[in-house]
Amino acid sequence: MINLLNEWMDPRYMRTIAFAEPSDEERERPKFWRFWRTLPGKGSIGIYVGSWYSEPLAQRVYGETGDDQLQVQLMHIRQLEQLLSDDGALIIKCWLHLKKDAQKKRLKALQKKPETRWRVTEKDIKHLALYDQFVAVAERVLTETSTASAPWLIVEGSDIRYSSLTVGQHVLNRIEQHIAQRQVLKQLNNEADWPRVNHVSQQNLLDSLDLTLKLDKKTYRQQLAKYQGRINKLVRQAHQLKRSSILVFEGWDAAGKGGAIRRLTHAMDARNYQVIPVAAPTDEERAHHYLWRFWRHIPRAGQVTIYDRSWYGRVLVERVEGFAGRREWQRAYAEIVNFEEALVEHGIVLLKFWLHIDQEEQLKRFKEREQISYKKHKITEEDYRNREKWDDYQRAVNEMIARTSTHQAPWLMVEGNDKYYARIKVLKAYCERMEEMLDAGMAEQSQERDS
Amino acid sequence: MINLLNEWMDPRYMRTIAFAEPSDEERERPKFWRFWRTLPGKGSIGIYVGSWYSEPLAQRVYGETGDDQLQVQLMHIRQLEQLLSDDGALIIKCWLHLKKDAQKKRLKALQKKPETRWRVTEKDIKHLALYDQFVAVAERVLTETSTASAPWLIVEGSDIRYSSLTVGQHVLNRIEQHIAQRQVLKQLNNEADWPRVNHVSQQNLLDSLDLTLKLDKKTYRQQLAKYQGRINKLVRQAHQLKRSSILVFEGWDAAGKGGAIRRLTHAMDARNYQVIPVAAPTDEERAHHYLWRFWRHIPRAGQVTIYDRSWYGRVLVERVEGFAGRREWQRAYAEIVNFEEALVEHGIVLLKFWLHIDQEEQLKRFKEREQISYKKHKITEEDYRNREKWDDYQRAVNEMIARTSTHQAPWLMVEGNDKYYARIKVLKAYCERMEEMLDAGMAEQSQERDS
Repeated sequence: MINLLNEWMDPRYMRTIAFAEPSDEERERPKFWRFWRTLPGKGSIGIYVGSWYSEPLAQRVYGETGDDQLQVQLMHIRQLEQLLSDDGALIIKCWLHLKKDAQKKRLKALQKKPETRWRVTEKDIKHLALYDQFVAVAERVLTETSTASAPWLIVEGSDIRYSSLTVGQHVLNRIEQHIAQRQVLKQLNNEADWPRVNHVSQQNLLDSLDLTLKLDKKTYRQQLAKYQGRINKLVRQAHQLKRSSILVFEGWDAAGKGGAIRRLTHAMDARNYQVIPVAAPTDEERAHHYLWRFWRHIPRAGQVTIYDRSWYGRVLVERVEGFAGRREWQRAYAEIVNFEEALVEHGIVLLKFWLHIDQEEQLKRFKEREQISYKKHKITEEDYRNREKWDDYQRAVNEMIARTSTHQAPWLMVEGNDKYYARIKVLKAYCERMEEMLDAGMAEQSQERDS
Repeated sequence: MINLLNEWMDPRYMRTIAFAEPSDEERERPKFWRFWRTLPGKGSIGIYVGSWYSEPLAQRVYGETGDDQLQVQLMHIRQLEQLLSDDGALIIKCWLHLKKDAQKKRLKALQKKPETRWRVTEKDIKHLALYDQFVAVAERVLTETSTASAPWLIVEGSDIRYSSLTVGQHVLNRIEQHIAQRQVLKQLNNEADWPRVNHVSQQNLLDSLDLTLKLDKKTYRQQLAKYQGRINKLVRQAHQLKRSSILVFEGWDAAGKGGAIRRLTHAMDARNYQVIPVAAPTDEERAHHYLWRFWRHIPRAGQVTIYDRSWYGRVLVERVEGFAGRREWQRAYAEIVNFEEALVEHGIVLLKFWLHIDQEEQLKRFKEREQISYKKHKITEEDYRNREKWDDYQRAVNEMIARTSTHQAPWLMVEGNDKYYARIKVLKAYCERMEEMLDAGMAEQSQERDS
């Protein structure tokens, strides 16, 4: 089948992706990481032999998971497929079905001839014995994941010619349909009167921050040494326990993100962390869903990744500057919440900092930077242009915080007019989250020991 | 030190890269793969904490390798650095030296205070005991790898302020120098009268091929079934033994590369192979050395990667079309030979096929393709334009084969006017190489058992 599809279509735009056992690099990341890393770029076709369905299906059949867990897994799958299809991807899912008798017959025929006997593995025999369970679970999986944007095609697989033609015809239809739909969608998007979603009125969170908070230099130095020492120890412990961290820094230009990040990394071993400065995407990144470039850098077990700006660009700069359409950035809130949920579920310690300063302080810092020769390059005309859009950005920030501050991944607001105060607040917050996590880990372990 | 460099330079263009134990994905590839995957793109700076020097150095000190092996490792390092610097990269290498007494004192001081005691690991104590051996090996390594393009800076490390300033000053000097040199180089490259290297006169290898060789349909079918069966078995055996294969297909347009590849993959399990069609590079790829995009796809242990066109584009299309300068493609022969040597040394089965047809046959196939609706897209005006450069390409192919057909990785010339004959020759060649390899593996194993 795969070979036929390769023959019928232009192999330059296609890639076959098959999954064996996950590697350690894959096991150490959230479960969808291995799929994200293989997703085809826009304009390309990925043929998946096995997919995000294989594991949940097998786990349920073997009784490793219960119905509830399967339910959650299927929800995550629907979310992933929705996210991809919202991004313009066409998802075609084919299920090749073989009746029990036909399956039995086929295996027997293969076993008869010496040159094909090897094709029948122990796993095949085992699966035949579990045939009824497989069909029962599969039926449920197919029903619950046959969505409007990604429906299943179920094909009778006993006759290879019939099933190949059916799949080929289906692929052709879906592609033609998809192209037609996209044209319509484009027109819709171009219409200026696209319905504006009304938001619940929200108070201005940023204005409620007390920007007069400060620390004197002596206290700062003491606290800095104290927290850096603790962080050093905590990061090493987390490394041994294979618990990763992701720290996200967002904030106004010149809010002190870089300085805070350096105070953090100063306490860590260079082998344990990675700082990802987020600028314009490369063309490979542009050819994928906007979250793809962040999935790329998800840390391995026990490592720390610090994002200097992040996926929140989608609902900040891309929204304000119009790089993302209204429907795109509005969709992004839920996508981001799901993404972060996957991180936290995997056991990653996730912290999100918003470094806040007021307009006056920002201007002061711009002017200061222009005075210092090695900081001059940090200030461009664009920075001044962005200042003019302060109100738009403020609206976007407020909405972002309201919509993505979840129980599992709350935003940490950092009053940043005083750099000393801000840095210590960041370090302290990371310390406390890590200690919480490690304590919880200990408690779990001792519970396990007791029981 | 790393933190200081990050503070002095713009972190948006820098990445710190540190190495812990290799992951299984890294161990399963040739040893430089983990460095290639982290190389910074053009215009970016990678700060390596530990590098390709760490392992050879430690292995020699611990007596895991002898002088000869170290010698070979250092040669490979020099080749890698030469290749990068030829490609325009600036390589700055700093060695921080600490006298034995100073080292001892520092560890003692750290051990005294409870808040820094943890910094002293068992490894540190062990390394202090091996101090003299470390210095002896390091001296040799530094001497033998201090090349004109990548010299070592040795810095006395006892005073952190002194060493930081020295390194900072050195980095600045080297960058300034590098920029100045590149300007000069650019001018040189622009001069039309760049000395032309004279090649040894070479016979036309391609003309010596017998293009009348053919197979009738019946024999073809029999042989196809036979070899596909054998390949299926061999690929599964190789998978179990964790031996990978890389198959390279080059040849004239319409020479039948795609058809031969499909006959091969038809015999394999989709989970075990990956076909990489090589077209124009992405911008991430363009921002790296031309070999980078091929290193990306080196197979994991036990997998097969098939390159539909390959790194030989550098000395074929890039040479003929002028995308690569004369010095660039001339350098490429040696770079490619070294690259393939690294693959073969790692135990990868490497086969390179040149599919040859004559001009008449090519024209016939172009015309045929234009008649078949689903093959029409394969023929563009560019294909006809390329035909006009047949002689230039022929010269390039002949030189490529003469210069890159090594004992370890010879070119396999495939007479392609008859597709049946060509496909069987390809399949048979892969079979035989795999059987050779597996036999050699068995012989080795039984020898080990006997001894």
